[in-house]
Amino acid sequence: MKNSPHSVHPATSPSVEGDAIYEFMETLFDLPRSITGDGNRMTLNAIGEHVPIQTFEIPTGTAVFDWTVPKEWRVNAAYIADSTGRKIVDIENSNLHLMSYSTAVDAYFTWEELEPHLYTVHEFDDAVPYRTSYFTPSWGFCVKRQQYRDMKARSGERFKVFVDADHFDGSLSYGEVLVPGASNEEIIVSTHICHPALANDNVSGIAVSAFLAKTLLQSKCHYSFRFVFVPATIGSITWLAKNENQLNKIKGGYSIGLLGDSGHIHYKQSRHATSEFDRAADLILQQSGDDHDIRPFVPWGHDERQYCSPGINLPVGCVMRTPYGEYPQYHTSADNMDIVCPQSLQDSYDKVLAMLHAVDANAVFKTVLNGAEPFLAPHNLYEGYSRDAGRDAFHKAVLWMLSCADGEQDLLSIAQRSGLSVGTLRRAANTLREKNLLEMIQGIEQAC
Amino acid sequence: MKNSPHSVHPATSPSVEGDAIYEFMETLFDLPRSITGDGNRMTLNAIGEHVPIQTFEIPTGTAVFDWTVPKEWRVNAAYIADSTGRKIVDIENSNLHLMSYSTAVDAYFTWEELEPHLYTVHEFDDAVPYRTSYFTPSWGFCVKRQQYRDMKARSGERFKVFVDADHFDGSLSYGEVLVPGASNEEIIVSTHICHPALANDNVSGIAVSAFLAKTLLQSKCHYSFRFVFVPATIGSITWLAKNENQLNKIKGGYSIGLLGDSGHIHYKQSRHATSEFDRAADLILQQSGDDHDIRPFVPWGHDERQYCSPGINLPVGCVMRTPYGEYPQYHTSADNMDIVCPQSLQDSYDKVLAMLHAVDANAVFKTVLNGAEPFLAPHNLYEGYSRDAGRDAFHKAVLWMLSCADGEQDLLSIAQRSGLSVGTLRRAANTLREKNLLEMIQGIEQAC
Amino acid sequence: MKNSPHSVHPATSPSVEGDAIYEFMETLFDLPRSITGDGNRMTLNAIGEHVPIQTFEIPTGTAVFDWTVPKEWRVNAAYIADSTGRKIVDIENSNLHLMSYSTAVDAYFTWEELEPHLYTVHEFDDAVPYRTSYFTPSWGFCVKRQQYRDMKARSGERFKVFVDADHFDGSLSYGEVLVPGASNEEIIVSTHICHPALANDNVSGIAVSAFLAKTLLQSKCHYSFRFVFVPATIGSITWLAKNENQLNKIKGGYSIGLLGDSGHIHYKQSRHATSEFDRAADLILQQSGDDHDIRPFVPWGHDERQYCSPGINLPVGCVMRTPYGEYPQYHTSADNMDIVCPQSLQDSYDKVLAMLHAVDANAVFKTVLNGAEPFLAPHNLYEGYSRDAGRDAFHKAVLWMLSCADGEQDLLSIAQRSGLSVGTLRRAANTLREKNLLEMIQGIEQAC
Repeated sequence: MKNSPHSVHPATSPSVEGDAIYEFMETLFDLPRSITGDGNRMTLNAIGEHVPIQTFEIPTGTAVFDWTVPKEWRVNAAYIADSTGRKIVDIENSNLHLMSYSTAVDAYFTWEELEPHLYTVHEFDDAVPYRTSYFTPSWGFCVKRQQYRDMKARSGERFKVFVDADHFDGSLSYGEVLVPGASNEEIIVSTHICHPALANDNVSGIAVSAFLAKTLLQSKCHYSFRFVFVPATIGSITWLAKNENQLNKIKGGYSIGLLGDSGHIHYKQSRHATSEFDRAADLILQQSGDDHDIRPFVPWGHDERQYCSPGINLPVGCVMRTPYGEYPQYHTSADNMDIVCPQSLQDSYDKVLAMLHAVDANAVFKTVLNGAEPFLAPHNLYEGYSRDAGRDAFHKAVLWMLSCADGEQDLLSIAQRSGLSVGTLRRAANTLREKNLLEMIQGIEQAC
Repeated sequence: MKNSPHSVHPATSPSVEGDAIYEFMETLFDLPRSITGDGNRMTLNAIGEHVPIQTFEIPTGTAVFDWTVPKEWRVNAAYIADSTGRKIVDIENSNLHLMSYSTAVDAYFTWEELEPHLYTVHEFDDAVPYRTSYFTPSWGFCVKRQQYRDMKARSGERFKVFVDADHFDGSLSYGEVLVPGASNEEIIVSTHICHPALANDNVSGIAVSAFLAKTLLQSKCHYSFRFVFVPATIGSITWLAKNENQLNKIKGGYSIGLLGDSGHIHYKQSRHATSEFDRAADLILQQSGDDHDIRPFVPWGHDERQYCSPGINLPVGCVMRTPYGEYPQYHTSADNMDIVCPQSLQDSYDKVLAMLHAVDANAVFKTVLNGAEPFLAPHNLYEGYSRDAGRDAFHKAVLWMLSCADGEQDLLSIAQRSGLSVGTLRRAANTLREKNLLEMIQGIEQAC
Repeated sequence: MKNSPHSVHPATSPSVEGDAIYEFMETLFDLPRSITGDGNRMTLNAIGEHVPIQTFEIPTGTAVFDWTVPKEWRVNAAYIADSTGRKIVDIENSNLHLMSYSTAVDAYFTWEELEPHLYTVHEFDDAVPYRTSYFTPSWGFCVKRQQYRDMKARSGERFKVFVDADHFDGSLSYGEVLVPGASNEEIIVSTHICHPALANDNVSGIAVSAFLAKTLLQSKCHYSFRFVFVPATIGSITWLAKNENQLNKIKGGYSIGLLGDSGHIHYKQSRHATSEFDRAADLILQQSGDDHDIRPFVPWGHDERQYCSPGINLPVGCVMRTPYGEYPQYHTSADNMDIVCPQSLQDSYDKVLAMLHAVDANAVFKTVLNGAEPFLAPHNLYEGYSRDAGRDAFHKAVLWMLSCADGEQDLLSIAQRSGLSVGTLRRAANTLREKNLLEMIQGIEQAC
């Protein structure tokens, strides 16, 4: 495995932000999330303790495009007991033991009858897998290999299976944190909230999203940012359907998740592959100097699929560390708090924030001079005209902006060709605008 | 030499089609082909025993664009004899001994007079070269090195040269096999029939073409296919001139030849380089996993030159194994049935057929949904939404088609980015159309 | 250092042109050039002995875009003497000793007062650096390390500094050599004349430019060529401002300099990167088979910056050998006649000339035939139709032109795909036009 989460975490200095994200993850970890239910509501409330969140409840049966909001699912208890009544498997120990959306059961089964309802993991003796059956009524238990062997050893006995679960007309819950910017045009950051006690996938995405929103709320930006906390697939589809009339104000964005393991960042391109979001991600990862991978779009994965659907057609890429399915703990109880670390969380937070800032600062400028280079000396921008050596980044950025301000290239492409950051180029451009040497012809006033 | 036909032939299992093509080649091998004449008529008739062929006779003197159909050439006998009357070189032994289109001769020559009319091969002691002089009246004999040395040893003698040949007002012959499709729009497959006893170049092309036509006649396709059997250069120019008013219904196609040697497939791009035919060839060769080369267009080679001429402007690439001039037996009598094999013929047949099918299946689709991914479960197309692992090609194709059905990308480009075959994507697209999830916006109904 | 001018010069045979350029450099070397003054006038006059030059004097105070033509600078004498009156540093020995544009001084200084006005080189014990202060009134001396140490050893003494210099209302001088072509459309070749006794940077550029002009004056071309001899930055800005109303007739061109050292050619792309000038430079360097580098545009360097400014927007690339700042003698007195050689000068001259010729010969052709390949035999252009082997470049060019004359590809792109030179392709195209097989649809009649 190329990017094993078992390898050491990034050797950055311990970070307050990373630690805070990790601590927030700990409070979220055990909540019994699914695609509906109180676990999700508790998760949204916990986010609301950090940032102002608006929550929505969409009733069971609501048509959302080609889909329908499902019944809500509630579990009170679930266990398998042996013939003596001793509980062998019990969701009291882990909410992963019961297959999500399992139907109610209260009956005795032979081993042959029970066995098809049991799921185990091959990679880890002590882990249980994560299983769901949202759209096919069924029940199942996810068990450790030892639990499986114990039951099999007593295959002559009968086992009691008890699942006290309801499927009822309720609602699907999701949340939004809006960061208002100078413009009504919005960038979305979407993360999924439907996984129960799985740390990297995706308590990490929930916690990093919340902290990104918190930081952006303290700054002033061009665009508005909307952080979307939804159950996967049905959640993002529901969100899109409920916001169908407002999608024209969305510029695009990122789907984020799997942000705490020790692998390096993987960016999965949007279906458009060359959108501003794709170019910003490529630039930030490249300029970081850190290992990273850029992967082309495929039509499976996280909710970027929904946003990129040709009927929706928003450029939304996916930022993650080790991709879905590519680490052994993926979708098992071994995806716990031990495989995530503050340094990785901090690094993920830093890079997504940098991508968002890069898109926010992006703009197109045009010279207002009808001649050659301006005389920079009286503007205190002169640093000698002929050599790279010793020139600082800001003064290089001044020359790049004067040279490339042709009304066509945007800051992302000038950053790509110059090797300078979008932020430095934007500072230089702002200075040159103040001196009436440049005008902005695309983009909006940046408040920050 | 990179791709020597001396190396072993592809280790595929013996194939009925390859054997049948090889056997057909054997019946064609010895016919005395040239740019005109009865050898060509016999060749076209032999093709007609496998597939319905329409033959055309274009009279000598017919203006065909900038060219004129030449006189027909007929040879009754040709030999060189020594002073005792013993025949040293005689076309009874090989139709390659006489330079094609040689003028009539009946005279005695000294060695010094004869020698400039003799042609030998350096690479093989026992082979004779293949020579023509279509447009400059002349005569010549192609001889083995031993024959040359025998004559030289008797250079004091006089040699009798006898060529009983006519150049007369006759006609140039060519043939067409039409495979009618749902549409009148046509794809052409062109191969040249002017070479006498040379196996790879180009009895292989004639035989593979005939069997491709035979197979396509048994299927139903979008496009009509027209297989064109013409002498090189003057033949394709004549065909183009006679069909000038119908070229607008031709989409493009392939020139094929040199299909039986043990080298791998070389595809020479059309002058357009990025046409559907070029993209289909690239895709099929790449997805085959076999060694292959894609070469840029050059303005010499086979009849692709004529079809690609800017005055004609059809995208026609060239499919061959070891390219013209790049194997030592090329244009010598050593290009015989020993250097071709059923496995290579089968492989050439398979790959050209796959290219034709890929172009035939190509189309552009567009989602009819104005939302996100459709709910696939009720369509029996659901296989889980998040992972590649274990998903079969058809279900992957369903997701790719739903995701890329933006009305812009065609199946060839979706095949390129997904790694799936055009055929599988087309099946998925057809299924999704039946379920009213996609519509076809470019391409025509495929009957097969 | 990658391209050290210390390495051996190109091993070409001694060349008359290279020798003549070298000799001309020797006559120019010692003239006291700056951005204004009599040294520049003497330089322009010396060029005028080889080619008809028109000189211009632009008065001090003239507004040139965002800049103003500075006062003229004249120096009569400048030295540092010790307490006994012995001159330690004196411009009689090298015009590099005095910082260019130094203000007048006649006073005694302590070591502590003097030292901040002294400049040395680290790389060479025996060299003095080249320093200027055009826009900040100041004075300074550039000294050898030994001179510096001598003065420092007597740091208890007082030193006499004498600079007899005037800054007065005069003019900035520049020169132009016009090579009239069939068209009024112009290609510019710009080189800077402001450096005093520095050989490679840039007496080499002045001398090569003069000899290129001399050669072009003896030929007849499509375009007119304008060789521009200006002081760097302020000079090209002045030239652009004075010619503002005629810039629309300029197609683009090259800034050239640093042409005599033993490094290989470096081409710095114009800001446009894909202009005809960029494509011609790339083609000529690639087809030369010699080592070379193509570098992307950066907004510092020579006067290409000014021409490429978005307010001017001309495609002007820069041809040089070892780039500015990348050889140790750069901007020091060690950049003398020993580090340049006739072979390199010849090679630079040859390659720039070839680039200019390539742009001059570039055109777009279109077949006049509505059919396939023409019948070449009656045109004496026939060389056999099928193989590359043995075909000469001219006959290959005939086929390439017939094949690519689609009214879209220009000669530079056909040269790129065919591997043939633009000159050979142009000769073939001209022949085909005479035979009424091609017409020219873009480009003008070439007289040469």
